[in-house]
Amino acid sequence: MKDFNFNISTKILFGKDQLNNLADEIKKYGQRVLLVYGRSSIKKIGLYDEILKIFKDNSITHFELSGVVPNPRIDKVREGVKVAKENDVDFVLAVGGGSVVDSAKLISAGFYTDSDPWDIVIKKEKVTNALPLGSILTLAATGSEMNTGSVISNEETGQKLGWGSEYVRPKFAIMNPEYTYSVDSYHTAAGTVDIMSHTMENYFTLNDGAYLNDRFAEGILKTCIKYGPIAIKENDNYEARANLMWANSWAINGLISAGKATEWSVHAMEHELSALRDITHGVGLAILTPAWLLYCLDDKTSEKIATFGYNVFDIEKTNSQIYDAKKAIDALKDFLESLGINLSLKEEGFSEEDLPIMAKNCLENKNKSQIDGFKTLKEEDILNIYKKAF
Amino acid sequence: MKDFNFNISTKILFGKDQLNNLADEIKKYGQRVLLVYGRSSIKKIGLYDEILKIFKDNSITHFELSGVVPNPRIDKVREGVKVAKENDVDFVLAVGGGSVVDSAKLISAGFYTDSDPWDIVIKKEKVTNALPLGSILTLAATGSEMNTGSVISNEETGQKLGWGSEYVRPKFAIMNPEYTYSVDSYHTAAGTVDIMSHTMENYFTLNDGAYLNDRFAEGILKTCIKYGPIAIKENDNYEARANLMWANSWAINGLISAGKATEWSVHAMEHELSALRDITHGVGLAILTPAWLLYCLDDKTSEKIATFGYNVFDIEKTNSQIYDAKKAIDALKDFLESLGINLSLKEEGFSEEDLPIMAKNCLENKNKSQIDGFKTLKEEDILNIYKKAF
Repeated sequence: MKDFNFNISTKILFGKDQLNNLADEIKKYGQRVLLVYGRSSIKKIGLYDEILKIFKDNSITHFELSGVVPNPRIDKVREGVKVAKENDVDFVLAVGGGSVVDSAKLISAGFYTDSDPWDIVIKKEKVTNALPLGSILTLAATGSEMNTGSVISNEETGQKLGWGSEYVRPKFAIMNPEYTYSVDSYHTAAGTVDIMSHTMENYFTLNDGAYLNDRFAEGILKTCIKYGPIAIKENDNYEARANLMWANSWAINGLISAGKATEWSVHAMEHELSALRDITHGVGLAILTPAWLLYCLDDKTSEKIATFGYNVFDIEKTNSQIYDAKKAIDALKDFLESLGINLSLKEEGFSEEDLPIMAKNCLENKNKSQIDGFKTLKEEDILNIYKKAF
Repeated sequence: MKDFNFNISTKILFGKDQLNNLADEIKKYGQRVLLVYGRSSIKKIGLYDEILKIFKDNSITHFELSGVVPNPRIDKVREGVKVAKENDVDFVLAVGGGSVVDSAKLISAGFYTDSDPWDIVIKKEKVTNALPLGSILTLAATGSEMNTGSVISNEETGQKLGWGSEYVRPKFAIMNPEYTYSVDSYHTAAGTVDIMSHTMENYFTLNDGAYLNDRFAEGILKTCIKYGPIAIKENDNYEARANLMWANSWAINGLISAGKATEWSVHAMEHELSALRDITHGVGLAILTPAWLLYCLDDKTSEKIATFGYNVFDIEKTNSQIYDAKKAIDALKDFLESLGINLSLKEEGFSEEDLPIMAKNCLENKNKSQIDGFKTLKEEDILNIYKKAF
């Protein structure tokens, strides 16, 4: 196990009645709130009105930034920073899914710089302070509510890039599984895949001896496999929504990556799909993951992939680890297909000509000549994975 | 899943080189440190000298409280509070295992009251402030370094009682698995059982739908089963020591109990053993747990105990859940015996006459007429479990 630091300060308020604590939590930090949200969903479920009533009852002044979209854009963040500065807000409240939380994080950091917030994303500008922020989560997918990361897209440059800072770790997250009842089956499936992908990015490493964290990861995967299909069929199944929501946080809050050398190969490759065709992130991950695993499968990686099969999909052990690992990848593919997701790039509107462009951009955007993950991937390998996934 | 709050603020510095960060972490809070430790072990492994050198190099003034023993005593805490007050310390550093951390917690809280610290333990005095504290862990067992609880014994009254407060959650924990190399096989075994018992106390509940947290719990148990025996045989196996140490924290930091109605039946019963005969806590837990599980086994509890068997001990599923649950309890008992622990009260020096006294005290010390856990236990049930464990 590698040395690591672990420190999650985010306070989680999980369950049906936690909105009652919103005002108290905000007032620890401020009184002038920038409310960041997406399109109409928080209004449809009545959450928007409830929040506004809480603000009114508690003399909390608020300003709004609405219209944040999936694969959230830098333009909207710039708009948010402007509103925040003009009104001298002292707290940012993100209400929505990962795109809203990710945007709120960059607004919080952008508040304290005169530079363009995109400079923070491309690491030209260092984050040295941020407004305190909190979130009310309405989608189980990115896990952004309990960590320091954020992913923002730039339409002008065609980039989708991740950045992060301890300064933007949310102070609190209100997580009521009921708020995710209105998420349709397709996005529930995509969210489930997102959680699984975060988990697998952390899980598939070699010989690090982080046994406990790998068992934790398998627990998250089993939870997705059990409850993803239930939540897709019964949108208002509390137990399913609650377990998926809780899994979403732990997949990516630093626990299951602790002590490991993780690299996040699939996310790097997927960001090119979202950047080029704006497809749903979880769908992109579902398309790429089995292709990537099959490409990685060799004598060095077979033990880990087979273990994944035994512990997550109850694959029966044979005397061939390669065979068992293939069965595990098949089981994963079958599961992803069962969620109703297309598992080919072609079906998602990509052309063969896109593939080499994305392979090139993938490394360029990371400023690297290769991805050193579970298996080292050079441009040619990335292209081959895109081809397998086509 | 029940509603819950989750907020672990303790910063974990895990690994071989983390002592380098000690001075920086302390200086965030103070300059005058009360160093609390046990007997000679931290001197034997050279840790004491290293810490003193760090204090000297960083102009940190320190005062000492040594001689904390397992099942730590209120007398020693009183002494610590006196030293802390007389010297106006501003930070408490616990170096040792759970007894040292538990004592440091009560010293930290006792610093801010004129009452006897025992009043805090018996809830006569409310904790409203505490000195900041941190720990350097040298034993994987109680998990006290990452939570708010503490257990203190009072020889005068013959009581061993738990108390807790958010104010005494450690600010940081330095966790170097190498510091546990010197723990002998017997105490390594007892520590492993302690971790398992914390996990099982949280795990064995009914119908709460906390699926993910139960999978996490199984991961902790599997870790103990894999690495306990390795660490007992090879005291300096880093991977084993690291996984046990990490498991120790997560068994009892609030994660696997989140969303569940946990009751901690076995600990309540064990505290009477330690109070009466001062036996090693983990040994008491090992003796009682299989007897308790067997006593709990019925049509309501068999599913959970059988699931424990399938997922933790790879028990094969038959068409009788009761049969499978019995097999699971047998597997647990076999495992505990394999660690070299006596599994009977008699062998640990108890007499039959002790049993009814302990059964009576157990409920009296909880101010309860019964323990409402996995199965409701009245005085007669507790006595029966003690008899089964005799």
